[in-house]
Amino acid sequence: MTAVENTTRTEAGATPDAPALSPHADAAGRHLWMHFARMHGRDGAAPIPVITRGDGVHLWDDRGRRILDGLAGLFVVQAGHGRRELAEVAAKQASELAFFPVWGYTTPPAAELAERLAHLAPGDLNRVFFTSGGGEAVESAWKVAKQYFKLRGRPLKHKVISRATAYHGTTHGAMAVTGLPAMKKDFEPLAPGGFRVPNTNLYRHPEFDGDAEALGRWAADRIEEAIAFEGADTVAAVVLEPVQNSGGCLTAPPSYFARVREICDRHDVLLVADEVITGFGRHGVPFASAKFGFTPDIITCAKGMTSGYGPLGAMIASEKVIEPFLAPGVTFPHGYTWGGHPVSAAVALANLDLMEREDLYGNVLSHADAFGATLDRLRDLPIVGDVRGDGYFWAIELVRDRDTRETFGPQERERLVRGFLPGALFEAGLYCRPDDRGDVVIQLAPPLIAGQREFDEMEQILRGVLAEADKIV
Amino acid sequence: MTAVENTTRTEAGATPDAPALSPHADAAGRHLWMHFARMHGRDGAAPIPVITRGDGVHLWDDRGRRILDGLAGLFVVQAGHGRRELAEVAAKQASELAFFPVWGYTTPPAAELAERLAHLAPGDLNRVFFTSGGGEAVESAWKVAKQYFKLRGRPLKHKVISRATAYHGTTHGAMAVTGLPAMKKDFEPLAPGGFRVPNTNLYRHPEFDGDAEALGRWAADRIEEAIAFEGADTVAAVVLEPVQNSGGCLTAPPSYFARVREICDRHDVLLVADEVITGFGRHGVPFASAKFGFTPDIITCAKGMTSGYGPLGAMIASEKVIEPFLAPGVTFPHGYTWGGHPVSAAVALANLDLMEREDLYGNVLSHADAFGATLDRLRDLPIVGDVRGDGYFWAIELVRDRDTRETFGPQERERLVRGFLPGALFEAGLYCRPDDRGDVVIQLAPPLIAGQREFDEMEQILRGVLAEADKIV
Repeated sequence: MTAVENTTRTEAGATPDAPALSPHADAAGRHLWMHFARMHGRDGAAPIPVITRGDGVHLWDDRGRRILDGLAGLFVVQAGHGRRELAEVAAKQASELAFFPVWGYTTPPAAELAERLAHLAPGDLNRVFFTSGGGEAVESAWKVAKQYFKLRGRPLKHKVISRATAYHGTTHGAMAVTGLPAMKKDFEPLAPGGFRVPNTNLYRHPEFDGDAEALGRWAADRIEEAIAFEGADTVAAVVLEPVQNSGGCLTAPPSYFARVREICDRHDVLLVADEVITGFGRHGVPFASAKFGFTPDIITCAKGMTSGYGPLGAMIASEKVIEPFLAPGVTFPHGYTWGGHPVSAAVALANLDLMEREDLYGNVLSHADAFGATLDRLRDLPIVGDVRGDGYFWAIELVRDRDTRETFGPQERERLVRGFLPGALFEAGLYCRPDDRGDVVIQLAPPLIAGQREFDEMEQILRGVLAEADKIV
Repeated sequence: MTAVENTTRTEAGATPDAPALSPHADAAGRHLWMHFARMHGRDGAAPIPVITRGDGVHLWDDRGRRILDGLAGLFVVQAGHGRRELAEVAAKQASELAFFPVWGYTTPPAAELAERLAHLAPGDLNRVFFTSGGGEAVESAWKVAKQYFKLRGRPLKHKVISRATAYHGTTHGAMAVTGLPAMKKDFEPLAPGGFRVPNTNLYRHPEFDGDAEALGRWAADRIEEAIAFEGADTVAAVVLEPVQNSGGCLTAPPSYFARVREICDRHDVLLVADEVITGFGRHGVPFASAKFGFTPDIITCAKGMTSGYGPLGAMIASEKVIEPFLAPGVTFPHGYTWGGHPVSAAVALANLDLMEREDLYGNVLSHADAFGATLDRLRDLPIVGDVRGDGYFWAIELVRDRDTRETFGPQERERLVRGFLPGALFEAGLYCRPDDRGDVVIQLAPPLIAGQREFDEMEQILRGVLAEADKIV
């Protein structure tokens, strides 16, 4: 750091009227490059909000304000904030053995968690490759699929098919699987071999007149079409989320997944369920693929596994997938230093215990309909076009015209999604996710300990803010 | 998990003579997919070693054996194992706020650590983009470089040049930067745009007759040649480690880095120092680029930042690099859920405090020559071709013929690197790294608290095992 950078810009550049930044907002404004966020003015007029504390479903900022965590951090904090028992498990493991890699070795927590995940996963998905997080799990799944077919004597099979608007990560492979052109264009060319098919957004397919089964048949057949377009001999995997996040909590009926499973089997293509968000109770079960009636060949997961108390991810593969890798002399030349980190793995085990002991799965299953019904009340606001989701994972789609389902233009999105909503919601005491990666949505995904009181609070805050939003666009 | 998978294979398949697997070795053998490792026979004849505990420079396995940690986990555990103060900091932060993302927000630990890293980094590298780990940091650096030039009106600049045999990560972008064909071939095509130049392996360039400066001039000029081959208008970045890991601790003199810096400036190419291994004291200073006399535009780092007590990585960028991203309306559309994790960031701050308080930097600087000199004693063994390194980061290159420097063939490597050495060293009480990503080397990189006693122990164990190795190849 040079001397000139060491001056505090709040002192040097603050106008007489502007309040001084808090020390953390000041340090962050000068040094923290935030993710997926505008950086303009962060050292002055647009200070970075500072979250200092969490307890249960609530967060506090550095001005002492309490905020309802309507997003579980980032679809992560299943057990809620401030869980001392998870903190204590972390400390115990860190004192005993804080770090050792699974590169030819194991640690007790990594071994136990691998066994635990194998028990939780559907079918014979019994083989766990740990990663640092979700994007690395998607990278691992694609790499496994590529090598799997080479080992099986089908070396041309390397492409991957995924769905429009779906987010699967930000590294060059995960980006190639991601279906968000705006997120990718500055970084092209990405890893070649990623191809897109339609998702199952029923609201944006009015021609199906609300018939999810019919949309599902059509959308599944588009996957078979894409395999034919590319040639089945070149396609290694289909990657999809049981409920698609980007675009706003897009569900599909079990018949869709059954059909996709058939198509994959017919063409010798691996089916990868990206359960980074949908796993670990978000839909009231350990893995949502089971809830929606299908068994993938590979599951990718992360986030909720530890409730965020430690970074961790995993790829869980079936016995079929690992089989050629068990032959003498074969190595999967892949790995991550932090994959299966002992502290994170110990925390994951304790978190899974906690979720079972407190029956957070049951809490979600018994409250999910009420959550949806509470948010449904917002349909009386003209700006609300759709309310959709499953479990504790819901989206409210905002529209310019409810009758025509017309969405907002670029300037309105700018005012709404980047200008008005995040600040207005936060000021009103609700942290959630306004997003326009696809159409304009607000996503709600609270900790799995939430109940009707929190649903009502979310609905009340959203009602006030969305009524205001209607006026500014 | 299906019922058949639930049987314990040690019971079902063990021969009368084979000892029963420990519970963790058994669980790992059936469910843990290890990184960069053979999986054959792991549920029986080739059980996975279980590391259960660490204290200082030592590890213990599940049979109660004590092992000297000659690799700091994986170039990670700078402060040594069993540091209760780091465990307690983790628990405190996890109780207060275990998780919140830096996606448009900050937490106190993320803000403080960003400021701390800016102070530690050379030049005006003041802007910190957090990641989960090192590979993600390399991905971030490449993505930043691509968008940086687009924002500056030079949209064709997107390629990256890196060095032969260098390891920069395993995701599809980081793999494209990596210079290890064997690690990549099963996963091609990778992200396009990665090009290779020679590294600075003086032992494998006998034509320079030990003249590191001359090799450096030649190797730097090969970077300028590669830029000319591709066209400077299309090249975004050069990525290199201050001391290259793969190939075995390859150093270069400051004149090399100064020349590379000049070449990058001449052609408007960003210089990225991958300090995932070399950062945080491994070479006795916070960042090794400063020790070798150059200021990169971007530093990538991870591992030692937390001494492994929490997963974390970072990309640290200069004011020049972030400048176009500070304009109104600009976003770097990139991020990771776990990037800047509050617990890992708090642990990093405590680890950096600890390293300063106990002067681990000074410990490395004052002992590094003795470490090298102790390992140099092994040169009397015929199998030892070279001993090289810097700081607490050394490699012993093994050769078939010391006079001709002839290396081992594929079958000898199989017997030596995958067959004999890992087990023999571990059995003899030393955990370190036999590797043949480039030529055959054994790497030593102990925790930074190590001293002459540990150097001597390493030398003694290596002496015995390498004398045996000489007989089996």
